Formats: sequence, structure tokens, C-alpha cells
Amino acid sequence: MTAVDFEKFVGRLADVSAEAIMPFFRTALAADDKAHGGAFDPVTEADRAAELAMRRLIETTFPGHGVYGEEFGLLREDAEYVWVLDPIDGTKSFICGLPLWGTLIGLAHRGRPCYGLMSQPFTRERFFGDGEAAYWRGLARGPEGERGGLEKRKLSTRPCPRLEQATLMTTSPLLIDVALREGFYRVERETRLSRYGGDCYAYCALAAGHVDLVIESNLKPYDIVALIPIIEGAGGVITDWSGGNAAMGGAIVAAGDPALHEAALKLLAG
Amino acid sequence: MTAVDFEKFVGRLADVSAEAIMPFFRTALAADDKAHGGAFDPVTEADRAAELAMRRLIETTFPGHGVYGEEFGLLREDAEYVWVLDPIDGTKSFICGLPLWGTLIGLAHRGRPCYGLMSQPFTRERFFGDGEAAYWRGLARGPEGERGGLEKRKLSTRPCPRLEQATLMTTSPLLIDVALREGFYRVERETRLSRYGGDCYAYCALAAGHVDLVIESNLKPYDIVALIPIIEGAGGVITDWSGGNAAMGGAIVAAGDPALHEAALKLLAG
Repeated sequence: MTAVDFEKFVGRLADVSAEAIMPFFRTALAADDKAHGGAFDPVTEADRAAELAMRRLIETTFPGHGVYGEEFGLLREDAEYVWVLDPIDGTKSFICGLPLWGTLIGLAHRGRPCYGLMSQPFTRERFFGDGEAAYWRGLARGPEGERGGLEKRKLSTRPCPRLEQATLMTTSPLLIDVALREGFYRVERETRLSRYGGDCYAYCALAAGHVDLVIESNLKPYDIVALIPIIEGAGGVITDWSGGNAAMGGAIVAAGDPALHEAALKLLAG
Repeated sequence: MTAVDFEKFVGRLADVSAEAIMPFFRTALAADDKAHGGAFDPVTEADRAAELAMRRLIETTFPGHGVYGEEFGLLREDAEYVWVLDPIDGTKSFICGLPLWGTLIGLAHRGRPCYGLMSQPFTRERFFGDGEAAYWRGLARGPEGERGGLEKRKLSTRPCPRLEQATLMTTSPLLIDVALREGFYRVERETRLSRYGGDCYAYCALAAGHVDLVIESNLKPYDIVALIPIIEGAGGVITDWSGGNAAMGGAIVAAGDPALHEAALKLLAG
């Protein structure tokens, strides 16, 4: 597969995922529906439909590739290329009608994340990268009624070496392991501003140079694999809290500036 | 002024505000800029430019009207009609590059909010209402590359009489007065799901039937006046924590379902 074909193929994955998901976004959900059944998981249907659509497309195009998705598990894990999929990262935002969720499409080559895309179909944004470079594509700015088509821009993190200048995001401090939470708070206390919520959107805001630090824990590989080539391609650093490989998930720290990443690691370790 | 002229005029206010603000949204802000000066207020310039643009348009069109804005205070407060403006509600989201802030444009007639509009120029959404009805206008859904123009839909809150079925939003529990926070947590513990962040976007998600309850405190009139006719027009209820007039700001509770509003008021009172 050539580079051009490949980018087009990942774009098609994002298209079929968006087609499956969008009919479920911002549809009225009455209290009766919410109370029905046991577990609270109103986006399962959209999630499953999107993952199936992406899996079908991968199967027919690259039958030898592996696939690891949130909803349907692992297939051919020993393949040279494995796709890592999370159709709706940020399900709470999704059910609140907020446009901060995203579809994560990652590709690992012999276990190493080599390409990633985050698609937000409501805002019509895509963030993608290959570890060497990263890009944003979305609607061109213009007067509200007229829309001038799509625009593509290079992503790059911003310099911010010191914690006291940094903007920090995390989905919620309560999602961080209790045993690790004090480490998170040590960092948070030193930062200039912290903001909760965001899920995958927070990492993309970091790649775009608006946020300096994202710290979370308890992530699954499909929450993070797609984001690694975007962040690294934009000039950022992303590892686990010990400075090791982020691709297995767990406790993650991403920084736009390598010096800031180092400072955060030290404080997280205590 | 006829009803049609009026809706067009408020649309023009949102246009001039968006033109003033958007050049500042998602522009790179280096650590040096952030460290410069004392207070942390990077959106002041956008905020002030937008409020001035709206004030100019109001002055030339309705010279007898009063204006109350976050940045430039109160002018002709005794006028029959007073415009209540907050160019960027949700400044923290703004500086993180998240599309959850909004421009709030409210109109009060003899002190009573009679029209309100929330504009989110990045997602190209507008939520507006007059207390009798409320509407959303945004990009029509369609394949990602093609955009089918603007679409207008009626907003209506969803039924959800009971707290244990409710989705709750608040910008941050830490923004709630310490003295009131226990009341907030009493409600939060009973709800099905709570989500932080959102500012004005949370109230619009409530009007659209995706969120059931928004509870905050310490709001200023310009944080809330524009949202009242939207929420009431969509069938919701919005008051202060004692069940009184919300238009003066303070501690606010908004619910999509009147029965849920009553249940929340009881728990907030303790």
C-alpha cells in the first residue's frame, strides 16, 4: 500500500464510523430508555455498529491485518500490522450531546504505533499523524453561513518548559487510581490552569499547541494507541508515568514540551 | 421593530462578535505570553473587541436601549430594553482550544429576560429562544466533505422526573460556594451521571434534551440572562436555589423537567 492510498483508506474508516455513529448522536433519549435494562451504556449500539463497519472494511482491504477494538476484542494479534479501534472515546460527552468525543483509529506495526487518526464528526475535524508529522483537517474559517470547504494545517505543540506556565487537562481526577491520585494532585498544584473533561480531544488540543499536559490513568491500549503518532508527530512526548512505552495504556502522561514532560514525571513519582 | 427584523438583528450581533473573537481562538500562545503580566486572562482582548463591536451595533440601531456587558459595565440601566452581553462565556475552554464556550446575547424588557441567543462560532451553532419557543441552528448533517447548508430545529427538553435517571452538569464543583457545596453533592449523589465542564454549552444541551439538570453558583447576570428564554422556550425551568428569579445570577438550578427541578430544589435546601 502506498502512502497516499493509505491515508485515503484511513479516511474511509473514519467515514464509515461516522456514518454509523452520527444517527445516534443528539437523538432524544427519554428517561424510560435510560432506566431500561441494567448497566448504563446508552452508546453501545453506536459503538458496536461503528466498530463492525470499520472491521468489515479492514477485513476486505487487508485480510492479513490484525484488529483490536473496544467492543469486539482481538483478532490475529500476531499480525505484522494490527489496527487498534475505539469508535467512541468519550462516551459521557457523547451522551451529554457535547462534541468532545472522538473515533480513534490507530495502526501498530510489530507492536509500535505507526499511524493514528482522531475523527470528530460533529465538528468535522480530524487530527492525524505518523510520528514524524501531524495534521489537523477541518472546516475552513469563514462567515457563518458560507463555508469554504476543508482546510489542512500542520500540528505542532508549543514550548512550555515549566509547570507554573502549563495548562493541564485530565478527563476527571476521580478516574485516576486512588493510589496514584496524590501524584496527579502534586502536578496539578504546580500548574497555571487545569481543566477537566476532554478524553481524546484533550490530547489533540495538546498536539495543536493549546494545552501543555495531559495526565490520566487506567487507559486501555485502544484509548491511546491512535493518539501516540499524533502527539509525537506534533513534537510532543507521551509515555507512561515511569517514562516507559505508552502503547499498552495504563497511567499516561503527555506533554507538548519535553522539558515539561520530565518535570511532570519527577513530581508524579513523588 | 418587527419580530423578523429583530431575529436578524440579534444574528448580526452574533456575527460581529464571532468576527472579533475567532482570530483569537486556537492561535498559538507561547509560555512567554502566558507568563507576561500578572493576572491570567488571555482572552481579554477577544472579549473586549467582541463586546465593543456588539455595543457599537446596538448604539447605532437602538440608541435608547441599555447595555450591560461583562467587560464594559452598565449603560442606561433604566431603559425599557437592556441588552445583557457575555462575549466569551467559558474562557477556560476557550484557552484550551475546546469548542464549549459561547457568546451570550440576552435582552431584558423591564428587567424580564425576553430573548436570548448562544452562539458557538467554531461549531457554527446557535441556540436561541424567547421564552415561548427555542431553536437550534447549525450545519446540516451530511458526508464529511460536503456540507448541505444550515438547518434549524425546534429545541425541547426531555422528560426526566426523577433524580436517579438524571444526567447532571456543572462547570466545576469547585466553583460552587463552599457553603453551598454540600447541597450540590447531595443532588449529585442521587443522579445517574454527572459531567463537569460546559459553561453555557451545558444549559444549551439541557434545552436540547441531552442533559437533565445544570446546577451552579456565583453566576453573574450576564452568565445567565441569555440562557433563560432558551431554557424556558424549550420547556425547562430555571430559577435560583430558592426557586426565585434566575435573572440576577447567583446560585442557579436549571432542569428540563419541572418535577426534577422540584426534587433538586428540595435536596439543595437540605
